[in-house]
Amino acid sequence: MPPLDVPELVDRAREGQPRAVAKLISLVEDAHPRLREVAAALTPYTGNARIIGLTGPPGVGKSTSTSMLLTALRKAGKRVGVLAIDPSSPFSGGALLGDRIRMSEHATDPGVFIRSMATRGHLGGLSWATPQAVRVLDAAGFDVVLIETVGVGQSEVDVVKLADTTVVLLAPGMGDGIQAAKAGVLEIADVFVVNKADRDGAETVVRDLKQMISFARREIRGQSWRQPIVPTVAARGEGAEDLVRALADHHDWLVAYGELERRRTDRAASEVEAIALRRLRSEIEDLHGGDRLTKLAREVVDRALDPYAAADKLVDEL
Amino acid sequence: MPPLDVPELVDRAREGQPRAVAKLISLVEDAHPRLREVAAALTPYTGNARIIGLTGPPGVGKSTSTSMLLTALRKAGKRVGVLAIDPSSPFSGGALLGDRIRMSEHATDPGVFIRSMATRGHLGGLSWATPQAVRVLDAAGFDVVLIETVGVGQSEVDVVKLADTTVVLLAPGMGDGIQAAKAGVLEIADVFVVNKADRDGAETVVRDLKQMISFARREIRGQSWRQPIVPTVAARGEGAEDLVRALADHHDWLVAYGELERRRTDRAASEVEAIALRRLRSEIEDLHGGDRLTKLAREVVDRALDPYAAADKLVDEL
Repeated sequence: MPPLDVPELVDRAREGQPRAVAKLISLVEDAHPRLREVAAALTPYTGNARIIGLTGPPGVGKSTSTSMLLTALRKAGKRVGVLAIDPSSPFSGGALLGDRIRMSEHATDPGVFIRSMATRGHLGGLSWATPQAVRVLDAAGFDVVLIETVGVGQSEVDVVKLADTTVVLLAPGMGDGIQAAKAGVLEIADVFVVNKADRDGAETVVRDLKQMISFARREIRGQSWRQPIVPTVAARGEGAEDLVRALADHHDWLVAYGELERRRTDRAASEVEAIALRRLRSEIEDLHGGDRLTKLAREVVDRALDPYAAADKLVDEL
Repeated sequence: MPPLDVPELVDRAREGQPRAVAKLISLVEDAHPRLREVAAALTPYTGNARIIGLTGPPGVGKSTSTSMLLTALRKAGKRVGVLAIDPSSPFSGGALLGDRIRMSEHATDPGVFIRSMATRGHLGGLSWATPQAVRVLDAAGFDVVLIETVGVGQSEVDVVKLADTTVVLLAPGMGDGIQAAKAGVLEIADVFVVNKADRDGAETVVRDLKQMISFARREIRGQSWRQPIVPTVAARGEGAEDLVRALADHHDWLVAYGELERRRTDRAASEVEAIALRRLRSEIEDLHGGDRLTKLAREVVDRALDPYAAADKLVDEL
């Protein structure tokens, strides 16, 4: 294997070579020894991509919708990167593999890059790896980065919060999901999509959403953004233009109200904090070759120390 | 409100007063200023409870199974604490409320304590709060602590890893969930329950599980525990005694192979590390009243710093 030439790799990624992009993402995911050099090389090129999160309950048609949005953005000449977040639950595995196959019409398009990211096994989890991967795609010159999650669990919601704009997908026939989901969905959604809008019950979903928005809007958002509701039939590409327009409207609003800057600063703060905590965690693990933590843990099990006193000892020794 | 008398509160919890137990859990969850005093007061009484995790996909009958197990353990004279973990997904909210209602037959039993715990809004999340709550129940003299999660997402799986024994519930008619779930389930399960065993397809689930276990056993577990498969019909209480027996067998095995000590040491190490990282995180937040992180984040957004360099500055200033 040739030695790693970071500047050349970044150049090749910016030229649109998918293998260079993939290699850079792997480097940051795996915390390569030359991670810092990679991060420094990427930094000058960041800050241009629009970052869009898509989430929603299983069965709502997320991957079909992601694919529809991809097609529409490609028609508009945008280069698009997709991060498909796999929460790696023992009970949800496999779904994203299918999603990737369904997105294969884009597989040969050089303006599209698709990557699945798994939680399992990553030090620091997705909250660490995802912003790094977004940074790579941004620096590589993708105009839009789509982050798709299966939308279950707090960590996936946190991942979507990395986005400038979060799209929450719903569909008819998901049981009483909307009522149950109410509070959480209102908090994170910038744009609602009601997919499978040709099915029975779609109008009820739209009506319920409208009610929830009008009822809760003031308490949820201090500013004047009114979450749009976009009906789609993603399997037939219906509603794609409306969705693209809603996303553009939200982007304009973000810029006009200084909210884009605020969101990106919040995101960078979380990223910096996560990296700092990861470094501290690795310093804890390195204390006396990891033995120190085990020794303190034994004292806790033996009731010689309470866990707070043990943690204080650990921090004081750092 | 009378001043907080920690030793008296611990005494009352140990006498079985549910309000004292609830108060102690709230104190540790909310990181009360006198948390360390509480932790120190609890420590001498810990280490006796058996900790059992229950997880499985939605719809498998987890809360009915928890209730069945509760009844069986109560018959055997055990005091039982239940922690129902709510991952607070915007898309799964509400389920545990129903679960609690279904467990209401135990609501007036002084030998039972049931608590729902939500991720959302907790500093440090469930990985921080759950071991603390387990510690309270343990010190309060509960013989068994059941941790029930909805079983979706990595963080919930992590919570179940707090247990001495993890029970994974499956049921017929969950689609191709077992195949998809294969690897993850085998990793975390000590005991399998196939609930709704009176329904079509239950035998197929048992057979598939048996195949998976015989196929993957050696690679998954270095030691000689063979995961039992317990068929139940929780709604009618069928299989409760078999489940109690399987749990007792596993406990005996844990003790015989030194695995109980090892698991508890691992758990204590995670707990100590989580507390240490929480303290470091709060020190980061306190740096110049929180302004320092924001200022560094702005430099990252402005491309003047990469996030690693910013994190290094933060750590060096701690």
